[in-house]
Amino acid sequence: MEPVKVGLLGLGTVGGGTVTVLTRNGDEIARRAGRDILISHAAAKAFRREAIEGIDRIPRISDDPWQVVADPEVAIVIELIGGYSPARELVLQAIENGKHVVTANKALIAKHGNEIFAAAQRKGVMVAFEAAVAGGVPIIKALREGLAANRIEWIAGIINGTSNYILTEMRDHGRSFDDALAEAQALGYAEADPTFDVEGIDAAHKLTILGSLAFGIPLQFEKVYVEGITRIEAQDVSNAEEFGYRIKLLGITRKTERGVELRVHPTLIPARRLLANVNGVMNAVLIQGDAVGPTLYYGAGAGSLPTASAVIADVVDVVRALTTDPENRVPHLAFQPGELQDLPVLPIDQIETAYYLRVQAEDRPGVIAAVAGILGEAGISIEAIHQQEPGEGDTHVPLVMLTHRVREGQMNAAIARIEALGSIRGSVTRIRVEQLAG
Amino acid sequence: MEPVKVGLLGLGTVGGGTVTVLTRNGDEIARRAGRDILISHAAAKAFRREAIEGIDRIPRISDDPWQVVADPEVAIVIELIGGYSPARELVLQAIENGKHVVTANKALIAKHGNEIFAAAQRKGVMVAFEAAVAGGVPIIKALREGLAANRIEWIAGIINGTSNYILTEMRDHGRSFDDALAEAQALGYAEADPTFDVEGIDAAHKLTILGSLAFGIPLQFEKVYVEGITRIEAQDVSNAEEFGYRIKLLGITRKTERGVELRVHPTLIPARRLLANVNGVMNAVLIQGDAVGPTLYYGAGAGSLPTASAVIADVVDVVRALTTDPENRVPHLAFQPGELQDLPVLPIDQIETAYYLRVQAEDRPGVIAAVAGILGEAGISIEAIHQQEPGEGDTHVPLVMLTHRVREGQMNAAIARIEALGSIRGSVTRIRVEQLAG
Repeated sequence: MEPVKVGLLGLGTVGGGTVTVLTRNGDEIARRAGRDILISHAAAKAFRREAIEGIDRIPRISDDPWQVVADPEVAIVIELIGGYSPARELVLQAIENGKHVVTANKALIAKHGNEIFAAAQRKGVMVAFEAAVAGGVPIIKALREGLAANRIEWIAGIINGTSNYILTEMRDHGRSFDDALAEAQALGYAEADPTFDVEGIDAAHKLTILGSLAFGIPLQFEKVYVEGITRIEAQDVSNAEEFGYRIKLLGITRKTERGVELRVHPTLIPARRLLANVNGVMNAVLIQGDAVGPTLYYGAGAGSLPTASAVIADVVDVVRALTTDPENRVPHLAFQPGELQDLPVLPIDQIETAYYLRVQAEDRPGVIAAVAGILGEAGISIEAIHQQEPGEGDTHVPLVMLTHRVREGQMNAAIARIEALGSIRGSVTRIRVEQLAG
Repeated sequence: MEPVKVGLLGLGTVGGGTVTVLTRNGDEIARRAGRDILISHAAAKAFRREAIEGIDRIPRISDDPWQVVADPEVAIVIELIGGYSPARELVLQAIENGKHVVTANKALIAKHGNEIFAAAQRKGVMVAFEAAVAGGVPIIKALREGLAANRIEWIAGIINGTSNYILTEMRDHGRSFDDALAEAQALGYAEADPTFDVEGIDAAHKLTILGSLAFGIPLQFEKVYVEGITRIEAQDVSNAEEFGYRIKLLGITRKTERGVELRVHPTLIPARRLLANVNGVMNAVLIQGDAVGPTLYYGAGAGSLPTASAVIADVVDVVRALTTDPENRVPHLAFQPGELQDLPVLPIDQIETAYYLRVQAEDRPGVIAAVAGILGEAGISIEAIHQQEPGEGDTHVPLVMLTHRVREGQMNAAIARIEALGSIRGSVTRIRVEQLAG
């Protein structure tokens, strides 16, 4: 069959990786796809030619992405510029020009996916975005196709490698957050401005996508509850360990009778769970389906070649479906466009979970009773409690508890009452706890 | 769109589960697939009607599977009878009649897949078999589609739940193989005749399929090296633990410059690997791709509803590709039929791996030196060695070693020399060791 001609926007980390993988593995890929995939036209503002294996095989490279999306030879546009603009405008123009699109841009899909998919639907073209979640791990394919027979019950994922690296370092070496972040930056795992990663925003982009694919709801990034890892202290990591838990930054989405949960926050999970043993920059997503039970998908969530792996797999998928009737293609959000449901997204105070609490309590009789009394009155059972020995001269000691499950609104009210106690110093540290059992 | 009519062969564990899942989740599945999937005709010798939710919605049930494969209304035949015959003849007849086939039958695909896929290719129909490997885990989809950009380097999988359950019990509770097997049988995890599972044959069927999908080679079940777990002793499990390893029954396939490895055997793997922490009846497959690096896929490898999940996902896939040109469909063995390569499969004495060795050595000076001397002369380095204290009155004590990597033929020669030593009692226990690092 004829080679497929592809246009490439962006020659940075992932763009360069895509050129490299297509160069190295082009023959192997063609043996699978049944035809050659050629990058016929690329655009990038600036790029390191010497760092990209196979760059010389691209016949046209300019600095104008609009030429690529207008190129009549190009059947598929790969968008690897990142960010909202001009990525959004370029993708919409490519669609308008009848081109299929492959993108790794999680921010774009999470924020503008509804608009982009509607445009693609009208033009009968595909927009593929496997690389947008968990990098090289084919998690979108698993969820949209592999688990198509299931009612998805919940998903919990480690979907930000930077945060997972920092939390792993904090646990393995007793480091502080600041130290671990500095190391992640030195190693290139974290950006100079790490906000997107450590504040949970990147994970929230990905969770938005997973939630829509799981439950057939529109993309609603602005409704995700987002809490990062910047306030996790070394003592919380070691306290969790003593209770038999590890702290991970999870993206969690769950369908309940009252609505859908969409939340990103640090979470204590039992140390024996596979997810608790996903370390360093690796990602993993645990999906609970009603028929299949729990399944887990693990791999590199970022990086040049892993992300390129997902981008090129999408290109192969698109190539295979070029001649398929649009209504027989896998729907963008897993469910047919007319079958999306606008289920309510629960505000965080409506979700139910267990909690790890740490308070600085005055070291005198009656304080534990006062704290426990407040929790008891709020109907919150304590599962485990641990009070540390005071250091010399300390008037306050850390009091650490695990609670049973409770609605977050109730917990907030109880925490406010605890913080008002004269015998408590500062605010209550609260980290949610999930068992992740099927 | 019109509903798709499906014929079902077999109403046992998986067949019943398929009816149940289609009944419970039919609406959800149709919201994804864009059309209803109806079982219009089923055949089974005997079945427990009261145990199958939704059985009454099937308009025709007989005991004659040949009627189903001949039914002109049926577009897709689901084969869930199992075994080689008449499954093979029924599948070939269904193909001959122009029907697409979905099967969970790993034995059939491993042994007769080449013939079946060739027949399907001639008739332009699809044969889907996601449920044949790792039950509900969409591992075939991941390998064939999700990782299509990669040169696969190796795969290592826990692909037999019964064996994994037994090995988990042996480790967690210090049980003997016989005790753990008896428990697995009592719980229904092992058959009355457990040979297929504990001797590695079931795993070899699945590994045959994974190897072909990974490397584009024909299915060659008869060339798989197969060794089960029946000779694993409790002391080997605890010795492995002391060295920081766990014993798992792995299916391993690897492409080397000299050929492809296809082997099923108990394997020591580092305890910190995710795969080492896959316990009970769960399955997991670790795939190393050159671009993506390691990815892992975990979930239930058997059972009624998990396997049905994969069967129905296949049906949805087939439905989506009904109107696709055959040459644009995903090839049965991942690579285009004309692109399969007949790479040599390496005999086991040609593979290279590290080893755990246990010998009963006479408790006197010079014996360790004699054993170590033989290994040294064979060019085999010892990485760790441990000699246990003799019990009262014991003349021989277990001497346990981990070696560096060596060609198995060399190891066999060294073992023969060790067994010929007068100071050694009985035969040498040898378990292969894999690091599973990328």
